[in-house]
Amino acid sequence: MKHTIEVLKIEECLHSDYIKPKSMYYLHNSVEKRWDIVDTHNSVAILLYHKDLDSFVFVKQFRPSIYLKNNDGFTYELCAGLVDKNKSLIEIAQEEVLEETGYDVSLNELQKVTSFYTAVGFAGGLQTFYFASIDESMRVGDGGGIDSENIEVIYLKREEALTFMFDESIATTSGLMFALMWYFKTYEK
Amino acid sequence: MKHTIEVLKIEECLHSDYIKPKSMYYLHNSVEKRWDIVDTHNSVAILLYHKDLDSFVFVKQFRPSIYLKNNDGFTYELCAGLVDKNKSLIEIAQEEVLEETGYDVSLNELQKVTSFYTAVGFAGGLQTFYFASIDESMRVGDGGGIDSENIEVIYLKREEALTFMFDESIATTSGLMFALMWYFKTYEK
Repeated sequence: MKHTIEVLKIEECLHSDYIKPKSMYYLHNSVEKRWDIVDTHNSVAILLYHKDLDSFVFVKQFRPSIYLKNNDGFTYELCAGLVDKNKSLIEIAQEEVLEETGYDVSLNELQKVTSFYTAVGFAGGLQTFYFASIDESMRVGDGGGIDSENIEVIYLKREEALTFMFDESIATTSGLMFALMWYFKTYEK
Repeated sequence: MKHTIEVLKIEECLHSDYIKPKSMYYLHNSVEKRWDIVDTHNSVAILLYHKDLDSFVFVKQFRPSIYLKNNDGFTYELCAGLVDKNKSLIEIAQEEVLEETGYDVSLNELQKVTSFYTAVGFAGGLQTFYFASIDESMRVGDGGGIDSENIEVIYLKREEALTFMFDESIATTSGLMFALMWYFKTYEK
């Protein structure tokens, strides 16, 4: 997929519907402290393994926050989504897989593995991690996200995954790193 | 270690020295978009394995952001620190190990493993991950952090680590989860 990015401007944000900083004042062992935080949504993330293709299925996205760091901005990530609607975690996981990758995975094929916190220093969302094996019969669309999200579906051969994840010229995420290590530890002892 | 936490107030934060939201306006494939982001520091994180004790060494910290999520706020994390000073990454890693855990690790004992991005949806810091084997001869202090950081040093037996990391009643981080999976995949095939 061809992507063109043209940055128009980056400016101080005085009001955001998404990022709402708060200050917490508290006593820790009787010492008063202030800590500034961003209250974020929790999230789900799903590692997809495509049996027919012997490949993992990831998403490639443009992330403005990463553009600020590496002047490129494209990251390879697990299929994932925010918990910002009135559905169960597993239903949100199912919906994100469909929207982002085009595969219709039934709820009983989504294996909940565990959960953990991200960005604890200043934000702190709880991410619940799922795994699903998929095959081409489950494919019902092209994925790519909704509302011009421009998400690209990436197939990575299992045998190339360890090289890929430790190649620092490729921008990956902590969630993808954990997920692949978990997969190899669990299934390839 | 006994910790007492008393929350005084949580309020909207109008100005922060630490959290500075920005808005990025850009064209992606000619479609104009705005995305709000928090520009954060990069970080280092270090997995410590204590040979004499056959244990991993973590830190337990009170995190206001996690308090908002689970009403407890204490997390188990890798020893870590922000890249906010004019030193190399490995020097910052060395300094954080000393400050937080009390072990004086030489630079050539710190093995750089890889790097990846965290919180890419809205923040996007690059975290560089190190590993070091330590022993009691390297211990020069009690750790605990500086400036009343109230960091508690935690020793977790290697044989208990897999149960610990998948116990969802314990608040862990994506970095710790990846690090332990990496350790077991690398050293216990």
